[in-house]
Amino acid sequence: MRPGPSRYHPIEGLIVMPRVSEDHLAARRTQILDGARRCFAKFGYEGATVRRLEETTGLSRGAIFHHFRDKDALFIALAHEDSRRMADTAAEQGLVQVMRNMLTHPEQFDWLGTRLEISRRLRTDPDFRREWSIQAAELTEAAAARLERQRSRGRIREDIPTAVLLHYLDLVLEGLVAHVASGQPTTHLDAVLDLVEDSVRRKPASNI
Amino acid sequence: MRPGPSRYHPIEGLIVMPRVSEDHLAARRTQILDGARRCFAKFGYEGATVRRLEETTGLSRGAIFHHFRDKDALFIALAHEDSRRMADTAAEQGLVQVMRNMLTHPEQFDWLGTRLEISRRLRTDPDFRREWSIQAAELTEAAAARLERQRSRGRIREDIPTAVLLHYLDLVLEGLVAHVASGQPTTHLDAVLDLVEDSVRRKPASNI
Repeated sequence: MRPGPSRYHPIEGLIVMPRVSEDHLAARRTQILDGARRCFAKFGYEGATVRRLEETTGLSRGAIFHHFRDKDALFIALAHEDSRRMADTAAEQGLVQVMRNMLTHPEQFDWLGTRLEISRRLRTDPDFRREWSIQAAELTEAAAARLERQRSRGRIREDIPTAVLLHYLDLVLEGLVAHVASGQPTTHLDAVLDLVEDSVRRKPASNI
Repeated sequence: MRPGPSRYHPIEGLIVMPRVSEDHLAARRTQILDGARRCFAKFGYEGATVRRLEETTGLSRGAIFHHFRDKDALFIALAHEDSRRMADTAAEQGLVQVMRNMLTHPEQFDWLGTRLEISRRLRTDPDFRREWSIQAAELTEAAAARLERQRSRGRIREDIPTAVLLHYLDLVLEGLVAHVASGQPTTHLDAVLDLVEDSVRRKPASNI
């Protein structure tokens, strides 16, 4: 099969342009997000001023806010990156593995603190809460799907509804974020996660 | 027994003065703490400016900082009040009951958000972290003492060290603080706390 006619067409440049621009846009977006994450981690949500965002991203405010409507949008986009990564892990290996990864990747802890700082916004700003919950839903859905799958395989206890188990795991995850974000020692936490994992598992039938 | 001579002594006024002053000081202290709690709850840690503290306490900055060295000291004193109340409950009824009380007293949630906002300080400021951990230790000690007592009564599972169970309950408590402080719905959380309670309890021996 010969290459598609557009492949070597003299006006190909015009056709390919949008793809190149998209690559460029994606790279620029990544550059902004990486810089913003460092900025939030270092200065906190309030402390991440436009000037500091310019410094950590290496871009002008015009460039930054061409890609993201405002600081909130940047923040939600970063949370979405996290959720997507955690959802991938949760879908394959479950929420407890997401938590184990947090224990073994301390370099993400700085950013986690910023997630705590926005709790007041979540409580008092309905628009922000709505945008936040859209991105957070991805992780919850992935975790719920895996729980159901594990249940159908007979690996999850039957005496407690999946919704309760899911809220339980979510609550422990929130606790872990708060714990590591405030820099407390993680002694015993591996053993704690073993206990958490065990408490959602189906127990072997007793030999009556 | 006749009253102590100082009781009706002409210079009694001078002697009693300190006691009256202490009552007065305690009342003033309470007034400041109540106002400061409302101020932190409403405006957050950073937003609780000296001017706003004056407004919510109804006292001058001179009066406020006569009783408390600075805003940090005020904040630690408030956290200490919480810890003491929670420690009383934990000593009698355990940490799970402390969490159940949080679910039934939503009016305390506003303040809990402020505890999250300071996580960055806890991570980056050793002096602040030290003062914080002194007040937090009271709750942990009360909870640990009750766990040991329950264990000696055969009510706690034997296969997991008390320290791990304590860290487990602490982690769930941290999760609950984060959850309610961000105003998320508490659906299923009663059932989640039943599960948490069950997972530290000794299981009845199986009938082999």
